[in-house]
Amino acid sequence: MKDSNIVKNICTLTVLVREKKPLIHHLTNYVTVNDCANIVLASGASPIMADDLAEVEEMVTMASALVLNIGTLNQRTVESMMAAGKKANELGIPVVLDPVGAGATVLRTSTCRLLLENIKLAVMRGNVSEIKAVGGFEATTKGVDVSQQDLLNSKDLDYGRKIVQTLSKKFGCIVAMTGEVDLISDGTKTYSIYNGHPMLSSITGTGCMCSSLIGAYCGITSDYLLAALSGVMVMGLAGEKAYQQTWEANGGNGTFRIKLIDAVSLLTGEDIKVRGRIGAE
Amino acid sequence: MKDSNIVKNICTLTVLVREKKPLIHHLTNYVTVNDCANIVLASGASPIMADDLAEVEEMVTMASALVLNIGTLNQRTVESMMAAGKKANELGIPVVLDPVGAGATVLRTSTCRLLLENIKLAVMRGNVSEIKAVGGFEATTKGVDVSQQDLLNSKDLDYGRKIVQTLSKKFGCIVAMTGEVDLISDGTKTYSIYNGHPMLSSITGTGCMCSSLIGAYCGITSDYLLAALSGVMVMGLAGEKAYQQTWEANGGNGTFRIKLIDAVSLLTGEDIKVRGRIGAE
Amino acid sequence: MKDSNIVKNICTLTVLVREKKPLIHHLTNYVTVNDCANIVLASGASPIMADDLAEVEEMVTMASALVLNIGTLNQRTVESMMAAGKKANELGIPVVLDPVGAGATVLRTSTCRLLLENIKLAVMRGNVSEIKAVGGFEATTKGVDVSQQDLLNSKDLDYGRKIVQTLSKKFGCIVAMTGEVDLISDGTKTYSIYNGHPMLSSITGTGCMCSSLIGAYCGITSDYLLAALSGVMVMGLAGEKAYQQTWEANGGNGTFRIKLIDAVSLLTGEDIKVRGRIGAE
Repeated sequence: MKDSNIVKNICTLTVLVREKKPLIHHLTNYVTVNDCANIVLASGASPIMADDLAEVEEMVTMASALVLNIGTLNQRTVESMMAAGKKANELGIPVVLDPVGAGATVLRTSTCRLLLENIKLAVMRGNVSEIKAVGGFEATTKGVDVSQQDLLNSKDLDYGRKIVQTLSKKFGCIVAMTGEVDLISDGTKTYSIYNGHPMLSSITGTGCMCSSLIGAYCGITSDYLLAALSGVMVMGLAGEKAYQQTWEANGGNGTFRIKLIDAVSLLTGEDIKVRGRIGAE
Repeated sequence: MKDSNIVKNICTLTVLVREKKPLIHHLTNYVTVNDCANIVLASGASPIMADDLAEVEEMVTMASALVLNIGTLNQRTVESMMAAGKKANELGIPVVLDPVGAGATVLRTSTCRLLLENIKLAVMRGNVSEIKAVGGFEATTKGVDVSQQDLLNSKDLDYGRKIVQTLSKKFGCIVAMTGEVDLISDGTKTYSIYNGHPMLSSITGTGCMCSSLIGAYCGITSDYLLAALSGVMVMGLAGEKAYQQTWEANGGNGTFRIKLIDAVSLLTGEDIKVRGRIGAE
Repeated sequence: MKDSNIVKNICTLTVLVREKKPLIHHLTNYVTVNDCANIVLASGASPIMADDLAEVEEMVTMASALVLNIGTLNQRTVESMMAAGKKANELGIPVVLDPVGAGATVLRTSTCRLLLENIKLAVMRGNVSEIKAVGGFEATTKGVDVSQQDLLNSKDLDYGRKIVQTLSKKFGCIVAMTGEVDLISDGTKTYSIYNGHPMLSSITGTGCMCSSLIGAYCGITSDYLLAALSGVMVMGLAGEKAYQQTWEANGGNGTFRIKLIDAVSLLTGEDIKVRGRIGAE
């Protein structure tokens, strides 16, 4: 369950981001936006949130990556997302899409498809229900959390791998489907990341934060597969450490949220080398 | 000051919610939305925030309860609240209203009345100033905090009980007026909850979070009085525990906020049995 | 590096605010709004966030100060800012402007200038890049963080002092330019505050929070220079204390954010007397 070369490259990327401090432009939801900004800062990158149509194209021009998150989408912001995404494509700036709640409403699913038809993505990251919904697989999204029926257990992993591989080819971007095991594919090779902790689903925003981390790493490399693997692994490792520290402190969900940001800001290359668990199929 | 049967029922409800994980749809403000999402998760329920007119009716269809919070209302979101509320009524999904800042501006007071005229509520929860303003009693709202003049002391409790009972009958819903002593009425019976701590008013969002908790419990019972009592008591008990832990840690407002979410996520039936303080008049 | 009289006056103001609890109306961004509300409460004042055109004028009438923060400005909220600011001017209520990201986009720079042309400010607070951009000095804003080129080191302090003094005269308001050394001028006298810690730039919102604190102090004095000095010094002292406690707890960015709010809520006059470092030129 160890792919040494990949782990080494993830280490390098997570160190480099602290030096390069790329600017990551977000059009995101108002629920988890503060957590997204703080996790990007904790990774070493620099966040900027701006969503007015009159400035998003200018703002993205300065950015090293663009994160589109439809968590609390509305007519005004979807229009801005389209404009920002197209501008990013024009300039070769990588775009990450988080299809929050896709499948839950027609608006969310159709907005994701609209974005996918008009904007070339670097990475799409969602939970199993969301990714299946966007891809046209039968899904049972309930709100923004993965549905019980869609949870992948180890038996279903092969089916999950087929999904991310198929959709990666279809959409021409990296697809990251996060859950108990995280599956990430570039259409050819599919990786499984075994880091993380169930407590990550006990607070809001860990999915959004993971997408923002992927955005941060996309800001310093054109190897978007590596960027996606890095974001997902960093989130998983931070979740493990935060859980341990929360448990030691007899803490609950509030403490976990703080320790999670702590863990990302304190993460070292050594942590990744020792605890990173990744396999390739 | 102990109504054993009620306390037992509150215990049952707070345990059941963790098993049923009801989806609680929010149209709420952007100041405390993250805290509301995290407190709902801490209670065991699942939050979804969505406010675009194009999706709120579809979203509420999936939900077990709807929370309307006017903390940062605007023309667009009020329209969405109306649509979501009406759809919830049509489907028999309980609606909780938090009239944040009612009385402070004409817009807030009139929006609350508009919602009350068009939507049948399960529960309305506010502070003394807000509840009085919505009900047409003379109030002196200052911003979103209860005014000094409106603070109920023990002498005024009978007056407070009359207010919640009158308004409960008038609006045909449970009315919860939270403060030093929390008063909750279904128009016939009126309960007083003596839990809580003054430090709850030292951070933003504790009122909003209380309304969201009530929404979480409304999602699994048709006894909305019990749901309101549960939400108010859980918030009060969490406030007491958070204060104690903050004090022990020499912490301030920041620590208190974290410990509050911790306390809700770690709350047990035993805590409620031992520390819950409620009386009926 | 000690101006005893000023330090004594800052002490008085930070104690008085807890007694007077002024209401501070904010039109601000959705990224750091919760932190702004909580820091205002930690200072002893009371925050209200409201941005709909239909209520901002009425709301500001009740307030003791108005904070305008363009962090996630859009067409709708800029219109509301104009209305609220003009009403505040009419009533003699002090207005604080935080020109977040000025210089990064035409929209931000031109909005700041529009606000400056139409609204008489009490205080403008920004980082070096933002203040230079608003003032028409050559700046190199990158997102919302100060650019490397714009960082003032001790050699450049005289240049920085010239900027704040010139702009204070030009705009007829106190100008506070925060950074490694904070420079605050009323056009005649220019103060330097040497408190603070680099970790303040490792989380989002510390600039916004500083502006909100200045708003809180403006709410109880007509000496806006003193209010600006107080807000900047309290933020700096809180940053120092939060860093120390984060370090002792082996914490990271998440812990620092919590300790920062703690530090403001627990700050005493004694802390200010002992650790406040200010000089006048």
